[in-house]
Amino acid sequence: MTTFTRLVRFLARDGRTYYGDAILPRGVTDISKARQARLVEGDIFGRHHVTDQVIDIRTLLAPLAPEDVKTVRCLGLNYAAHAKESKMAIPHYPVVFYKPATSLSGPTDPIPVHPMAQQHTGLDYECELVAVIGKHCSDVLESRALDYVLGYAVGNDVSHRDWQLKLGGGQWSLGKGFDGWAPFGPGLVSRELVGDPQKLGIRTRVNGQTVQESTTADMIFSVAKTIAFLSQGTTLLPGDVIFTGTPQGVGMGRNPQVWLKDGDVVEVELENVGTCTNKVEFGPARDAKL
Amino acid sequence: MTTFTRLVRFLARDGRTYYGDAILPRGVTDISKARQARLVEGDIFGRHHVTDQVIDIRTLLAPLAPEDVKTVRCLGLNYAAHAKESKMAIPHYPVVFYKPATSLSGPTDPIPVHPMAQQHTGLDYECELVAVIGKHCSDVLESRALDYVLGYAVGNDVSHRDWQLKLGGGQWSLGKGFDGWAPFGPGLVSRELVGDPQKLGIRTRVNGQTVQESTTADMIFSVAKTIAFLSQGTTLLPGDVIFTGTPQGVGMGRNPQVWLKDGDVVEVELENVGTCTNKVEFGPARDAKL
Repeated sequence: MTTFTRLVRFLARDGRTYYGDAILPRGVTDISKARQARLVEGDIFGRHHVTDQVIDIRTLLAPLAPEDVKTVRCLGLNYAAHAKESKMAIPHYPVVFYKPATSLSGPTDPIPVHPMAQQHTGLDYECELVAVIGKHCSDVLESRALDYVLGYAVGNDVSHRDWQLKLGGGQWSLGKGFDGWAPFGPGLVSRELVGDPQKLGIRTRVNGQTVQESTTADMIFSVAKTIAFLSQGTTLLPGDVIFTGTPQGVGMGRNPQVWLKDGDVVEVELENVGTCTNKVEFGPARDAKL
Repeated sequence: MTTFTRLVRFLARDGRTYYGDAILPRGVTDISKARQARLVEGDIFGRHHVTDQVIDIRTLLAPLAPEDVKTVRCLGLNYAAHAKESKMAIPHYPVVFYKPATSLSGPTDPIPVHPMAQQHTGLDYECELVAVIGKHCSDVLESRALDYVLGYAVGNDVSHRDWQLKLGGGQWSLGKGFDGWAPFGPGLVSRELVGDPQKLGIRTRVNGQTVQESTTADMIFSVAKTIAFLSQGTTLLPGDVIFTGTPQGVGMGRNPQVWLKDGDVVEVELENVGTCTNKVEFGPARDAKL
């Protein structure tokens, strides 16, 4: 039913927001280079089609509209070398935590750092393969699990290590759930175009310097195993987003440890998918308005 | 703007689902006793009104429609005596984990126990005061935090202790997130009618026997403190659901430990709000359908 190859959501020159199928120059696979897209009409999870109408892209947005997102699940410690650098055991089952949908943001959005996360130390990056679920999915077999994927993206599981590990009572979500702390995109690449999701290079650059560099072949639980596991007794819905864990090279694992600072530019990149480029912006508290 | 006093969602005799304002006999406060409701028209988070149309209730449903639910956050260890029985430290900050929206169910729904959760041991109950957010809420002060509450319910944070504590790598969500493992209701009582949410008796009965009995006065972080804390740097949305932790008396904390079995009937009750009565049902795996 999926007809797109690279689903993007974007702000057009006319000021409106559209879903589209990205048009890339020959030989280019990074969706962030797309300047035009063919309009996608209909329900991205159901009946939809790619039209002939070509629209200029002003800004690529998070590839799912907020109303199209359901639950955001994340895996921890899903690359052996990252578990080791985190001084944690290699897990027997996927280690699952959640981010709120409000943490999702687009491939060029700033990463806002609220005063609460400017306290203490530990602002860190995590490049991850992201899978978006396209169909109701419960108790699926590993051999069928990838059939439920709408598409793949790259994401940054932005984390504050003190709030994650020391101040949150051992539960990781608090230090990973701030607004805008899950940039993802630059679009969703169809499973047909990605092929085997366990053969993709993945990396992070901070201010142009490569700090994570690995391959999804090193994942402990493959995307298929992960979806099959998560769907046992728990229905996954169209619009569920799964961050599948990060490889070694995070700031926490370095010696000495290195934390993100105000103004740093973080790029997370997944082969055949593209790049998210997000700038760290320390900000003030917002005013609450009733 | 809220005009209801006890918002219920229900299946009517005509086979349709409605939002309504529960009608209770004089002197009765438990919403589960309601047999009729006045139809509520409009947006429950915005402009709505209670009509004069009285409808017979066939079955009370989860008080929020699935499309009206956003993120479900839960607090752990928020009663000192429960932290002690769990052999865990009293937290300095709220301990936050998540359940998926698919775990929510209604006040009389069965609690389905999937084969994955029939393995190992540790099926347990947790009665909790549940607060539902009614307005966009970010960086609120404790003194204003309750203004953002749409209403209060009682909920059961059903938990599988082995999957929660031993098999999930220390992250609690996996063992608490199965489909139907967060019954709540029987309706949402307005903040005007509840008054001070820190003065409510709360209890659990299993097969008629009282196993948890406490008061929300014993919460470490009050509802207002919890909402203020959660809203720092993280926007809470209309339809966010907050389970605020359970008091002592869970099966895990007993000597010897007692676990829920197939067929057990669990009632969680909150004073001035009502009762959810849910039967434990061990079931088979579901067939995946593409």
